[in-house]
Amino acid sequence: MKFACNKETILNEIIYSMDFTSQRNSLSITSNVYLETFDDKLIIRATDQKIGFSTEIAVQTIENGSITVYCDRFLNILRSLPNSEIQFSTKDGMLAIKPTNQTIDFKLRTISGDEFPQMETIGETPFFSVSQRDFNEMATQTIFSISEDETRFFLCGLYLERSSTGMNMVATDGRRLSIVERKFSEEIPSFPPVIIPSKFFIELKKLSSDEGLLDLCITENLIYAKIGNRFFYSNLIKGQYPNYRRVIPETQKYAATMRIQDMLDALKRVSLLIENKAKRIFLDISEAGVLVTSDESELGEAKEIIPCKYEGPESKVSLNFVYLLNPLKVMEGEYFSINFTEPTRAMTVKPEAERDYFHIIMPMQPNA
Amino acid sequence: MKFACNKETILNEIIYSMDFTSQRNSLSITSNVYLETFDDKLIIRATDQKIGFSTEIAVQTIENGSITVYCDRFLNILRSLPNSEIQFSTKDGMLAIKPTNQTIDFKLRTISGDEFPQMETIGETPFFSVSQRDFNEMATQTIFSISEDETRFFLCGLYLERSSTGMNMVATDGRRLSIVERKFSEEIPSFPPVIIPSKFFIELKKLSSDEGLLDLCITENLIYAKIGNRFFYSNLIKGQYPNYRRVIPETQKYAATMRIQDMLDALKRVSLLIENKAKRIFLDISEAGVLVTSDESELGEAKEIIPCKYEGPESKVSLNFVYLLNPLKVMEGEYFSINFTEPTRAMTVKPEAERDYFHIIMPMQPNA
Repeated sequence: MKFACNKETILNEIIYSMDFTSQRNSLSITSNVYLETFDDKLIIRATDQKIGFSTEIAVQTIENGSITVYCDRFLNILRSLPNSEIQFSTKDGMLAIKPTNQTIDFKLRTISGDEFPQMETIGETPFFSVSQRDFNEMATQTIFSISEDETRFFLCGLYLERSSTGMNMVATDGRRLSIVERKFSEEIPSFPPVIIPSKFFIELKKLSSDEGLLDLCITENLIYAKIGNRFFYSNLIKGQYPNYRRVIPETQKYAATMRIQDMLDALKRVSLLIENKAKRIFLDISEAGVLVTSDESELGEAKEIIPCKYEGPESKVSLNFVYLLNPLKVMEGEYFSINFTEPTRAMTVKPEAERDYFHIIMPMQPNA
Repeated sequence: MKFACNKETILNEIIYSMDFTSQRNSLSITSNVYLETFDDKLIIRATDQKIGFSTEIAVQTIENGSITVYCDRFLNILRSLPNSEIQFSTKDGMLAIKPTNQTIDFKLRTISGDEFPQMETIGETPFFSVSQRDFNEMATQTIFSISEDETRFFLCGLYLERSSTGMNMVATDGRRLSIVERKFSEEIPSFPPVIIPSKFFIELKKLSSDEGLLDLCITENLIYAKIGNRFFYSNLIKGQYPNYRRVIPETQKYAATMRIQDMLDALKRVSLLIENKAKRIFLDISEAGVLVTSDESELGEAKEIIPCKYEGPESKVSLNFVYLLNPLKVMEGEYFSINFTEPTRAMTVKPEAERDYFHIIMPMQPNA
């Protein structure tokens, strides 16, 4: 194999590839990136066998061939080189990397391209297009509610289902739930409801922009995405997602409305004095305002009152402050509301004016 | 105790104080910062009993008194508050922190000011003044050569001695040595040669600026520094510093001169393929240039030629690349030289044109 191309051109793709390798060690084939040249094209592939990435760039091919090299070191070497054309060639099991007109000469050990794992293929399911921005936003408004408990592996991903007007995305860890019900102007074909690992959305965010379309293809086992020349996929999480509709209260009796920034500031401050694992804060909601307090700890205590609009009885709610902090950090607009019927039952947290997402939080027992 | 002051005024000093606490846990008195008010002044002190810090700021004192609070949390609370005047008051063993005109109320547990350790005092030795920039620069050009081997504790600091025209600073770990022999226009009084922990210079850098003078006082046991209202000190390292003059070659037979940036770039690249603990690289010095190479590792190998000015026999030197990288990173000017007599004996590395600092590096045995 022998080819030449500009440093920046190949570096950009290897940066993306890096995230898809297993990164375990230099001897594992899945820590390597696959390079193949033909017809003045370079195919680049990386996979840890759960997720995969494939792209192609224009190069000047001098000799066809394929090899794999340790992605981590290949990336660091490319980064260290001056901006210029670089020649790549294989000889005696080594990949030589030489910038043109420079007295620099790297040789990296290779593993044969034949040993690289097969990439998952698309089959016959067709792709459909959605707005990159919409699909990213759906993940932004929900991804923090994913469970980290590996024993409930089916909650460790984002649930995606087709709706009559678009798609719904849901995340829950059993004590809180986030949901987006987004309308799409594009036609969404029928697909089975799936549970997608969060890693897919982390990579999507890096590979997409705020504009343009994304081609998606969803099968029983895999989700594929295509943006320009770049193509990536993830295995899905197998398992039965819970019937999340059952935990969403149909109506709530009371609503307290306040500024998002007021509550964010209060949570950041009051949480400085929270020492316990449960991360508990108290909200005393009354017509005079919301009093945010910490449990008294060995460090001290913190109190803060923020203005709110509320009509109803004085109510004391106790909850994990992170459950409120996470959604407020990414919530759009200036105001939000906490909606509840009884202080010990599920609360609904949503932006004011309403958007297509909201959150359910289970309060703690006040004397727990 | 009760006082009021602007947030930024006290925050700045608590940021500095933090570095001088032991930071171990919230119950240790040396994790606390000492606060004392009288005469519209706030005295702030912190010490881990090896280093210490003391400063005073103008506040509005309402009631004299002294207490200590957990510095880490006190700092985080101050950071989280809006920019405004803050009222501090003690009651029932708690320090209340309330921004004026805000519905924010923090209470932090305190430990009595009487339990705070005595700060070291100056005794009768007078201070002398030196340029902050000069004293900082001396540390910058040497501090990386300090030993990290605690069994040779007397090498784990910067050696400082008075010379006939100023002061010398030396650091060595037994395999390399860095020295600055700086002239001072200020009069330097006689003081005993001392070994100063690097922590003192790290704090000095944060507390000093590129302009102005620094007041120093050096005794058998301590080094004190004063910049404006801020005062800090460090215990010294007890022990016999080696006779470092013996390892400095008086003359070297050959000199290879090259661009600092060329060597830095080559070291950063070639070192990407160094896997062994000894961090060994080879320099093949000849009239054609310096060939920089790595040992062949399981990853591959790297080679780079950089231009140099050299007259002498072809010579192969093997050394820990970090010993060359460290001084070159902070060396001033465009060129430097490697000076040697035999490739297996001590080399002198220095800027070209000469300045008041240079470095000695012991090469490795070529077949080690």
